[in-house]
Amino acid sequence: MSAAFDVVDLIRAKRDGRSLPPEAVDWLIDAYTRGAVADEQMSAYLMAVVWRGMSAEELARWTTAMIDSGERLDLSGVGRPTVDKHSTGGVGDKVSLVLVPLVAACGAAVPQLSGRGLGHTGGTLDKMESIPGWRADLPVARMRDQLADLGAVICAAGAGLAPADRRLYALRDVTGTVESIPLIASSIMSKKIAEGTSALVLDVKVGGGAFMTSVESARELARTMVDLGAAAGVRTEALLTAMDVPLGRTAGNALEVAEAVDVLRGGGPPDVVEVTVELARLMIDLAAADAAPGHGPVGVRDPAVVLARGEAYPVWRAMVAAQGGDPDAELPRASTIETVTAPASGYLTRLDARGVGIAAWRLGAGRARKEDAVSAGAGVRWFVGLGDRVEVGHPLLELHTDDPATLDRAREALTDAIAVGPAPATAAPLILDRVSS
Amino acid sequence: MSAAFDVVDLIRAKRDGRSLPPEAVDWLIDAYTRGAVADEQMSAYLMAVVWRGMSAEELARWTTAMIDSGERLDLSGVGRPTVDKHSTGGVGDKVSLVLVPLVAACGAAVPQLSGRGLGHTGGTLDKMESIPGWRADLPVARMRDQLADLGAVICAAGAGLAPADRRLYALRDVTGTVESIPLIASSIMSKKIAEGTSALVLDVKVGGGAFMTSVESARELARTMVDLGAAAGVRTEALLTAMDVPLGRTAGNALEVAEAVDVLRGGGPPDVVEVTVELARLMIDLAAADAAPGHGPVGVRDPAVVLARGEAYPVWRAMVAAQGGDPDAELPRASTIETVTAPASGYLTRLDARGVGIAAWRLGAGRARKEDAVSAGAGVRWFVGLGDRVEVGHPLLELHTDDPATLDRAREALTDAIAVGPAPATAAPLILDRVSS
Repeated sequence: MSAAFDVVDLIRAKRDGRSLPPEAVDWLIDAYTRGAVADEQMSAYLMAVVWRGMSAEELARWTTAMIDSGERLDLSGVGRPTVDKHSTGGVGDKVSLVLVPLVAACGAAVPQLSGRGLGHTGGTLDKMESIPGWRADLPVARMRDQLADLGAVICAAGAGLAPADRRLYALRDVTGTVESIPLIASSIMSKKIAEGTSALVLDVKVGGGAFMTSVESARELARTMVDLGAAAGVRTEALLTAMDVPLGRTAGNALEVAEAVDVLRGGGPPDVVEVTVELARLMIDLAAADAAPGHGPVGVRDPAVVLARGEAYPVWRAMVAAQGGDPDAELPRASTIETVTAPASGYLTRLDARGVGIAAWRLGAGRARKEDAVSAGAGVRWFVGLGDRVEVGHPLLELHTDDPATLDRAREALTDAIAVGPAPATAAPLILDRVSS
Repeated sequence: MSAAFDVVDLIRAKRDGRSLPPEAVDWLIDAYTRGAVADEQMSAYLMAVVWRGMSAEELARWTTAMIDSGERLDLSGVGRPTVDKHSTGGVGDKVSLVLVPLVAACGAAVPQLSGRGLGHTGGTLDKMESIPGWRADLPVARMRDQLADLGAVICAAGAGLAPADRRLYALRDVTGTVESIPLIASSIMSKKIAEGTSALVLDVKVGGGAFMTSVESARELARTMVDLGAAAGVRTEALLTAMDVPLGRTAGNALEVAEAVDVLRGGGPPDVVEVTVELARLMIDLAAADAAPGHGPVGVRDPAVVLARGEAYPVWRAMVAAQGGDPDAELPRASTIETVTAPASGYLTRLDARGVGIAAWRLGAGRARKEDAVSAGAGVRWFVGLGDRVEVGHPLLELHTDDPATLDRAREALTDAIAVGPAPATAAPLILDRVSS
């Protein structure tokens, strides 16, 4: 390893706005992972990073050091070009469930190693786990085999990938140091690079229901991640997509799986289809550059057509079954379903992603602490989209829960999240920008 | 106690530049002292304070909360007005040793509760402990009695005074969060206010050998502390004094005691006399306002005269003896004394306080970690002051140590600290400014 540094000197350097030399970055991450740098020292360092940022060189090294704290998977034996997608998290965002089989159906392999949700945006694994029998944990060898067979895997990222990030993320969570673009970017990219994908598309959500509420900050995060990917040899592009209104018509685990299946069968809400197809096109473009002779064609057909014809649905079924799930099983349903009716006649002028996300979370779909369990059936379903006509007293949305005591606080979260007005709201664009390296 | 807060919310508030409400400050200090807020959370908070500062109200409450974490001594039964002095630390700064008996000889009582040194500036207790038999630890009742009898006490601050500051100081030391004016000011003032003095004079050192290297930052620190004193009902004034050149002719524990005794007997270096007399005048002015009828007069005679006549020396002797010390005992002497001669003939144009301080520290006079022991005899003595004539080959200074292996690194610290030039340097003023409430 590198020479020893004095951690207090490094904290002071960052506090005073200086960049750390590469060896110091390596030492800091390694010493923290080993326990030679204490939590109270690292948290002070992280707060200094929130304050002072990191230079591009420093951040690339920081990310590499986090990757080097564990293993980096080798997916070269999979036999297809690999490409993954990461979303920074939005309400009703079931896109991964559709996208993984769709991109596989178009000829690439998608190694979606994922995490669980925390807060008001759901996690992909939580959604998948509402499918009876489906298991998130997969040994690396089986993950590789499934990827070679089907081109599609969604599973839990093993503890061996970027363990330094795991410790850092837990520390940031309790020390008010989550909100930092370099720290967010390095956390996401260290895990995605370690999983071994050759290319990566980022869906950076922007708006009231997302972590990034302004286009400027979302663009900066996207740019930072795209550059980190390029520095690590992973071709990376990003889309900025709107997250003021929740995606589709459902937020909650089983509710979203059902909606994803609708989309996979060629139906479903048009906004979910639009975001999924745009991301799929980008992923396939990146993967096509890697396609070797002797493999099947990648990127020959438009994913919009593949999706509309339901050709991704068999891949979904095989992917679910390969991990113990029954694609034909009935999904869990909450024991209590309460209907909320429209307060007036007119047009739905407001459907706030954050409010809907918090309501679903309170109904049991999400967790407040990482050791909490989630309810598979809980969540929110809405019957109209922004700008649609509503009639007073007609059903507007449903609250699904296994714990009726949560209904009051869920309704409270929705109070300011919904508005009906005399004129239809103009539909805002879903795809806001694209960031390439 | 106050209502519970979420510590992550408080860290985020400070990180984002907001002030904490008073109850949140109370809760944070109390929860940290109880262990309900973890070190890694407090260190992140402290780094956010280094970044964002504290409002005046917030800082006053923070200081009060630190005082309230322990006991506040009641010195009202001492029978004389109480006034103390605190120095932010300088090289060769033996002023307290002279000042305490001098101000007592002028009729006030000085409760100098002190700490040990860390780094290149020596601590008053370390210096006093070079006197054979002298003990720093004194129960509160005996401290009060000695103050009533002699008006003079120098002893260790008990663990019951501002225990929150003790924990915070140790945390700041290892997390790069020492350098913050509100944190420095609250640390000093919480201890001084808790010791129960009615008035306080601060000696804020400025220059290359001091913690504050610019007059602006020193003035800001002084102003902050004076305001905190006023808010807590302790009349507080500050002098800004120069610390580019070390004070007097010695740096080291026993060496400085011997020099202080010279001053107490009416001799000694003029710079030590000047700073001591200026501080004594301020202290006596503040104490005179408190003098009650029936007590002896305070502030009638000029301390310059009292000092020059040696009238503080008997108080010194009594003060040393009251704590087990033998004022007539020979002081420890280092086993190795090496003389450094002048490299050229001319005038001493540079005598850098920081270099001299680090040399004395390396020779054994100071400690790097708080559990280290110090050598009583170690240190540096110099024979000429800034601007004095020197002859090539004649003795310039002496290095005193019990460990000859330290000599090389001590000489190294002095390499750039001393210069001899063709023309005498102009003497800079010692007293730079005064800050009153």
